[in-house]
Amino acid sequence: MSTHNSLIDEAVKSFSSLPGVGSKTALRLVLHMLERDQSYTESFTQSLMALRSKIRPCNVCANYTEAPVCHICLNPQRDQSLVCVVETIRDLLAIEQTGHYRGCYHVLGGVISPLDGIGPADLRIDELVERIKTSEIKEIIMAISPTIDGETTIFYIAKQLEGLDVKTSQIARGVSFGGELEYTDELTLSRSIQTRIPYQLTKTTDSSI
Amino acid sequence: MSTHNSLIDEAVKSFSSLPGVGSKTALRLVLHMLERDQSYTESFTQSLMALRSKIRPCNVCANYTEAPVCHICLNPQRDQSLVCVVETIRDLLAIEQTGHYRGCYHVLGGVISPLDGIGPADLRIDELVERIKTSEIKEIIMAISPTIDGETTIFYIAKQLEGLDVKTSQIARGVSFGGELEYTDELTLSRSIQTRIPYQLTKTTDSSI
Repeated sequence: MSTHNSLIDEAVKSFSSLPGVGSKTALRLVLHMLERDQSYTESFTQSLMALRSKIRPCNVCANYTEAPVCHICLNPQRDQSLVCVVETIRDLLAIEQTGHYRGCYHVLGGVISPLDGIGPADLRIDELVERIKTSEIKEIIMAISPTIDGETTIFYIAKQLEGLDVKTSQIARGVSFGGELEYTDELTLSRSIQTRIPYQLTKTTDSSI
Repeated sequence: MSTHNSLIDEAVKSFSSLPGVGSKTALRLVLHMLERDQSYTESFTQSLMALRSKIRPCNVCANYTEAPVCHICLNPQRDQSLVCVVETIRDLLAIEQTGHYRGCYHVLGGVISPLDGIGPADLRIDELVERIKTSEIKEIIMAISPTIDGETTIFYIAKQLEGLDVKTSQIARGVSFGGELEYTDELTLSRSIQTRIPYQLTKTTDSSI
């Protein structure tokens, strides 16, 4: 789809390069830009440039931050002895959105994937080990995707942590809330029976950790 | 939804201001920006700023262009005596996408809408009349939405053109190709019977106009 105008076509190409934006939607966004005042495009582009030039990884956990250390690592109300290991910042944000986790994070930057040429050295695993050795971390929660690569990564990290005074756990796998047993895949269902938990008649009022 | 980072939140707000982009999608786009090189954000924002600062309305038809007059008005292969009157540039682009129209355009910038406070003076109607008086235009095709406001606008323009040596027509309304009679609204169906056209056994090979 071409509009016979190189500037419009370039802007359409820019928007189309965003995930989930096709060329028709991109053209709609470009026309929206043209219909609004120039100041709209200016503040739009300025917010993106400010974002990209100032945001950097936290020195401790690799979360996005403007400061050397992010607001989660610096927050005295968060449990600094509990670290949740995630693949990406998207996963960190997903856990933050639940509002129930009060510990800290460690972003790996992916999982070990021999097929994609990603080895342990490409991930922030050494930094995690170093962090455990030099600070008061008591427990590591592995919140990593239950894929073959994810399981390999969990196994590798657990091996690295052998001999260190730190508890390791992984997030529970099972039937999701609202999920129907009938439509749950066999592996998840069989695992959820194997890893069953005792039923408690009295419930705690606060489910935060 | 807040990420507790003002720069990320600002950029999310910018993307959310685009039509059809919600806050979850906006966050996904922001993370995409952060994952790519800084040069990606630079070329993205530069293409938008170049677009917004250089694109202006064509002096003749009000189509978007970088030059004083757009490529359609300047094209000697287009029929300069045939002008299609459209509400917006979106409509112009939609007709261009068909690839079958070889005339020129005149963008009104909307339709007469007393409820929204839009009168004839807010639209490019005087410019259309002036253009007809000063150039060799033989026919005006009104390609305006079949709404009450649209019909009012067509009527108003036709009144203004009374006495001028120009043919006026409007695009055919009827059942769309691939549309089923059963599901066509009553007004469209009854109009399509009133404005029926003679059936031609021999078809022309080129449907361009």
